[in-house]
Amino acid sequence: MLDTEKLTEDRIREMIREEIARAFKKDPAKKKAMLIASKGSLDWAYPPLILATAAAAAGMEASIFFTFYGLNIVHKDFEKKLKVSPVANPEMPMPMPMPDIVTAMPGMTGFATGMMKNMFSKKGVATIKELLDVAIESDVKLIACQMTMDVFGYTQDEFIEGVEFGGAAAALSDARKSHVTLFI
Amino acid sequence: MLDTEKLTEDRIREMIREEIARAFKKDPAKKKAMLIASKGSLDWAYPPLILATAAAAAGMEASIFFTFYGLNIVHKDFEKKLKVSPVANPEMPMPMPMPDIVTAMPGMTGFATGMMKNMFSKKGVATIKELLDVAIESDVKLIACQMTMDVFGYTQDEFIEGVEFGGAAAALSDARKSHVTLFI
Amino acid sequence: MLDTEKLTEDRIREMIREEIARAFKKDPAKKKAMLIASKGSLDWAYPPLILATAAAAAGMEASIFFTFYGLNIVHKDFEKKLKVSPVANPEMPMPMPMPDIVTAMPGMTGFATGMMKNMFSKKGVATIKELLDVAIESDVKLIACQMTMDVFGYTQDEFIEGVEFGGAAAALSDARKSHVTLFI
Repeated sequence: MLDTEKLTEDRIREMIREEIARAFKKDPAKKKAMLIASKGSLDWAYPPLILATAAAAAGMEASIFFTFYGLNIVHKDFEKKLKVSPVANPEMPMPMPMPDIVTAMPGMTGFATGMMKNMFSKKGVATIKELLDVAIESDVKLIACQMTMDVFGYTQDEFIEGVEFGGAAAALSDARKSHVTLFI
Repeated sequence: MLDTEKLTEDRIREMIREEIARAFKKDPAKKKAMLIASKGSLDWAYPPLILATAAAAAGMEASIFFTFYGLNIVHKDFEKKLKVSPVANPEMPMPMPMPDIVTAMPGMTGFATGMMKNMFSKKGVATIKELLDVAIESDVKLIACQMTMDVFGYTQDEFIEGVEFGGAAAALSDARKSHVTLFI
Repeated sequence: MLDTEKLTEDRIREMIREEIARAFKKDPAKKKAMLIASKGSLDWAYPPLILATAAAAAGMEASIFFTFYGLNIVHKDFEKKLKVSPVANPEMPMPMPMPDIVTAMPGMTGFATGMMKNMFSKKGVATIKELLDVAIESDVKLIACQMTMDVFGYTQDEFIEGVEFGGAAAALSDARKSHVTLFI
C-alpha cells in the first residue's frame, strides 16, 4: 500500500486518465451490433446474416430486427419468399446484358433467383438456411417486428423457431447501446 | 468529510472505476439517434418516421436528414409523391402472385400504393401525415439536404413547416455524437 | 503541487467527474465513420462517397467497405457499370410522368443515367471520378469485399488503385470503433 502523502493532485489525475483510457478501449458499445433487416429479396437476405454471424464470431453480441419485407428472412417459407427480381436489381452482374423489357418478362425472377443461388453455392457461400442456423447457434438475437407482422397479417407460428417478437422500442433499446447499428 | 489518510491508491482507483462505470451507463451517445432518409417511396417513408418518433418517445434526441429521394417525405406534396412501385418491390406481399410483366403495366403503381395505404390504415398504423406531426411535436429535428434540393431544383418554400436546411456536414455533426446512426 | 491533506474523497470524485466529462467529449468513436456501400447504381454511388469525404473534411477517419453491388463503384469500369434504372427508382424526379411500362422499355436506363449525370453536373456536384479522387487524397480507406468479389468472379486487378481487400471481419473491426456506421 502506497503512502497517501505522495498522492498529489497531479498523480491522481494521471491515474484517472489511465483508467479512462483503459475504459474507452473496453467501451461496452464496441461489443454490440444491432442490425435492422428490412428487405425481403434473396440478395438482401445475405448482408444482415453474414454481418451478424461475423460479429458473433468476433465475440460481439449481435441482434437482428426483422421488419417490413425483412420478415421474409425468418418466415418458415423463406426459401420460397426470398427471390431476386432482375428488374429491381439493374446492378446485378448478369451473364449477358439484357434490356429492361426482357428482365420484366414472366419467368425472369425465377431465372435470376436460380442464377444467384448457383453463384453463391459454387463459391462455397453458406445458404440462407445455413446462415440462420449459425446465427441461432451463436446466440444472435433474432427479433421479428410485431407491428409489421400485424400489418402484413402474419402470426407468430409462421416464423422459424428461435425468433423473438418485439417492436421498434425493443430494437432501439439494443441499438442505443451499440456502436454498430445498420439499417439493411 | 473522510480522513484523507485512508485514501490509498487502491481506494482511489476503485472510486475512479466506479465513476467510469456509472458514466458509461449514461454515455451521452446512447441518448442520440441520427437517421438518414434517402428513399422517396411510400413504404420507405415509414421506417425513418417510426424509428425517430419511437426514439423520441424513449427520451432520445432524434434527428432525420432527408436526402436524395428522401426529400419527398418532407415535401409539401408528399401525399402525391410517395408511391409504391410493385416492380421495384418484388418482396411486397401481394394478394395474388403477379408476373413482373403485369406489375410493370400502367396503373399498377397506383394500385400498389392504394393497397399499402389500405393495409396500414386497417391495422391502425399512423399515416405519414400523422407521423410527421408526431415527429414535429416530439422535437425530432427534420433537416432537408440542401445539396440534393439544388440538384433536384427544389426551393425551401416547397417543404413542410418545421423543416430545417443543411448539408452532409450538419448531418455528420449530429451522427458522430450518436450511437444510433441509420441510413434508410 | 497541492497539499495532499486537502484531497478529500469529495474533491477526488469531483476531479474524476471532470476528467470523465472531458473524455466523453473526446470519445474516439466520435472521430470515426464506417460506411458500407452495397448498391451499384449511379444514384446510390453518391451517398457513400459524399458522406465519407465530408467526414474526412470534418477531421474524421472514414472508411468505406464496398460489398455486393457496391463493388461497381470501385471497379475500373465504374463509368460503364454505374447506371440508373428508372424502373427500380420510381421516386426519381422525372421531367415528365411516365408509366412503368414505358420506363421498362429498352433505352430507358441509358436515358435516366444520362439525365442524372446531367442534373448533377449542371448543379456543380462532383462526378464519381472526382469524388473517388478526393476520397483517396483525403485518406478515406477503401476496402473491397473479398467474399463478394469471389462470388461475382472479380479479381483484384479489376479495381482502381488505392483499394484494399478484406472481409466482413475487417469491416466490423472498423465499425465497432465508430459512432457513424451506415449501410448504404
